[in-house]
Amino acid sequence: MSTAEDTAGGEAEAWGQVTPDAARRLLVAAVEAFAERGYHATTTRDIAGRAGMSPAALYIHYKTKEELLHRISRIGHDKALDILRTAARGEGDATRRLADAVSSFVRWHAGGRTTARVVQYELDSLGPDARAEILALRRQVDAEVRGIVEDGVASGEFDVPDVHGTTIAVLSLCIDVARWFNVDGPQTPDEVGALYADLVLRMVGAKQSPAQT
Amino acid sequence: MSTAEDTAGGEAEAWGQVTPDAARRLLVAAVEAFAERGYHATTTRDIAGRAGMSPAALYIHYKTKEELLHRISRIGHDKALDILRTAARGEGDATRRLADAVSSFVRWHAGGRTTARVVQYELDSLGPDARAEILALRRQVDAEVRGIVEDGVASGEFDVPDVHGTTIAVLSLCIDVARWFNVDGPQTPDEVGALYADLVLRMVGAKQSPAQT
Repeated sequence: MSTAEDTAGGEAEAWGQVTPDAARRLLVAAVEAFAERGYHATTTRDIAGRAGMSPAALYIHYKTKEELLHRISRIGHDKALDILRTAARGEGDATRRLADAVSSFVRWHAGGRTTARVVQYELDSLGPDARAEILALRRQVDAEVRGIVEDGVASGEFDVPDVHGTTIAVLSLCIDVARWFNVDGPQTPDEVGALYADLVLRMVGAKQSPAQT
Repeated sequence: MSTAEDTAGGEAEAWGQVTPDAARRLLVAAVEAFAERGYHATTTRDIAGRAGMSPAALYIHYKTKEELLHRISRIGHDKALDILRTAARGEGDATRRLADAVSSFVRWHAGGRTTARVVQYELDSLGPDARAEILALRRQVDAEVRGIVEDGVASGEFDVPDVHGTTIAVLSLCIDVARWFNVDGPQTPDEVGALYADLVLRMVGAKQSPAQT
């Protein structure tokens, strides 16, 4: 169950770029409402109420409920791509860059799990155009990770018989952290990130631990 | 998007134990409706309509919408536990049993993804008693996989610094197949099961490939 406090924890920063303030508050309220009740059971009236605003005030910023889901999904996927691109283009060999990509992607899914769940589970609720746009971003996300895996195979650092299938598995492992991670559980996002970097290096048959850069 | 045909494919067999026929048809209809629109956006009237029955006929079998979700979740978790228990108590060393557990668990999540999504994503929609019952089953599911990992560490087959965290990751990898698996994609459930068995043996640092039994 998501609460305003929960969202304010690790997730508020994702919306910092959204202006004006009212538009940002409405996005945060929509994430909470969609996470709690699902997209189809949520009305724009519910969202406006959570944000302390009138339905008329909501329509100034968003014409439809789908526009809110689209904005949330777009911002979430842009951020995911940014995280993986930063790691993929960073310093160090493929082993180092894959470890960095996985640990930062996991930390983001643990810290922003309410948003991540909405983005992942409500993909089919988007209209055709918005869905096509998001799926194109997802292919770019996949390509960043696959690129690192291919680099590691080419350099002899990794041993990966099925690059495509292994890339899907690596991303899947990171994304599913949003489903099971519990802020009240024994592990911090950093600890899960470090464990998962190690597990993924094992999955790709990395010859050695990542060198410090 | 789930369709009746989709559910009839790999998923109908899961409900074979449910009698009478009307009660089974209602469960299948509820899975489809929850998967398409979410639990909170679905009414018992929607479910009865999908099953070609009247709301009054539904109430003969299920008193509430939550009772339907509870039955679905219970049957799904009983089946998951059965699959993992069969593998855990099968012939062979820990390497063989872990490979069997992962490949069968993955095949089930790929073939029964509509049901698996409902069971996984609507857990918070259950009332406190039903939720506690399901969480107890999930702890048994975890324990079966952890037991195989511990066996492999004890026998020297595996090298696992963090048994608890690695067990969560192995289960998470298998469960998330229900989110991304696409029947129209290039991989069959058997192929994903075989790939994942290999990836998981790498995650636990298995010294060798599974021996045939």
